Amino acid sequence: MSGIIAARLEQLGIDLPTPAVPVASYVPFVIVGDMVTISGQITMDSGQLKYIGKLGDEISVEEGYEAARLCAVNLLAQLQVACNGDLDRVKQVVRLGGFVNCTADFTDHPKVINGASDLMQEVFGDQIGSHARAAVGAASLPLGVATEVEGLFEIG
Amino acid sequence: MSGIIAARLEQLGIDLPTPAVPVASYVPFVIVGDMVTISGQITMDSGQLKYIGKLGDEISVEEGYEAARLCAVNLLAQLQVACNGDLDRVKQVVRLGGFVNCTADFTDHPKVINGASDLMQEVFGDQIGSHARAAVGAASLPLGVATEVEGLFEIG
Amino acid sequence: MSGIIAARLEQLGIDLPTPAVPVASYVPFVIVGDMVTISGQITMDSGQLKYIGKLGDEISVEEGYEAARLCAVNLLAQLQVACNGDLDRVKQVVRLGGFVNCTADFTDHPKVINGASDLMQEVFGDQIGSHARAAVGAASLPLGVATEVEGLFEIG
Repeated sequence: MSGIIAARLEQLGIDLPTPAVPVASYVPFVIVGDMVTISGQITMDSGQLKYIGKLGDEISVEEGYEAARLCAVNLLAQLQVACNGDLDRVKQVVRLGGFVNCTADFTDHPKVINGASDLMQEVFGDQIGSHARAAVGAASLPLGVATEVEGLFEIG
Repeated sequence: MSGIIAARLEQLGIDLPTPAVPVASYVPFVIVGDMVTISGQITMDSGQLKYIGKLGDEISVEEGYEAARLCAVNLLAQLQVACNGDLDRVKQVVRLGGFVNCTADFTDHPKVINGASDLMQEVFGDQIGSHARAAVGAASLPLGVATEVEGLFEIG
Repeated sequence: MSGIIAARLEQLGIDLPTPAVPVASYVPFVIVGDMVTISGQITMDSGQLKYIGKLGDEISVEEGYEAARLCAVNLLAQLQVACNGDLDRVKQVVRLGGFVNCTADFTDHPKVINGASDLMQEVFGDQIGSHARAAVGAASLPLGVATEVEGLFEIG
């Protein structure tokens, strides 16, 4: 790994993990043409779940931001595999779908999912990293994690 | 603006707003090839949030319908920018993703998100305006709004 | 109907229903190029709703699995129409979006949505049937159903 994006990841101190194996009967990503659809990623860090709980309750907005950032790191780890190791092939971050495990009165979903969006912009820059997004509240999430983020990417 | 769709919007009495700036670190839409992916739009009306609250509680189904319609107007405002001002370039409304901020026992999500779907059919007609859709309940939504709708469109 | 996939459906004892008419102002699917986007399907079985209720409450994980499988059968029924009756035209199951109507402390969304994912793999095999996925908890779902699943498919 020695491309432009690999260097930026190193600058940012981000060490992409070995991608998580799905916890169910599906695959981490599907490539159709130039588009990579990546399954919803949760807050797995070196094989351990982090950020278990709800926004609006035991998880603060700051922790939620870090949780979403971790989901985005896991998206990048899958994307790197989809690109045969070369993230310089990424032409556009198209869409992130962000789900926040939260209480009924929580309103700061954008600030939480910014953790994922900011990472994409830091890694890929303003042009390639800018993406469309939906950020909504989930009644609950798999294994009790605070955030889940799925992604759609264009590669060359 | 003087196309067929512009005329229909005028007939319908719909004045597209200046598109809202995202409340977070992402962009309103991304174009890849002929496909426009538009970020989740909320109930912003002339710079003011409307329809704050939950379906099944303080927001009626009729108000929810209007909330979803307002989200769809905001989708069109973004789409108009994506089309360089010419909505006649829209070839197909492909998908709407509708999220309803609601109580645990609410069941009328379809009637609510119809506010967005009906608008698409009114503006673009039965062929271009017909779209696939998902309508689900959210534990809560950004800033406490009653509805959020994202969209996927094909343009020419 | 006499193709490879039709034979597999018969082997599996799956009789695809006449596709459900949407309960609202949208269409069951939209085709753009080779991509079929199918609206969120619920637990309609021969014109009757099944699996009404919440995971974590009156619906068990096993029932939720069957509910998601039923949603997937309904996706296939729509997909068959999109393929003019010939499911052998399906080149890839690209993405399933799975929503689980559940309590705030439910954590087994993956096991539930596996009901839909497993069906795709049984019907289309490991290559074509493998897909990306998001599985999240919904505060509630249309008509009170336990699961809703939408899908994206590539056809040839």
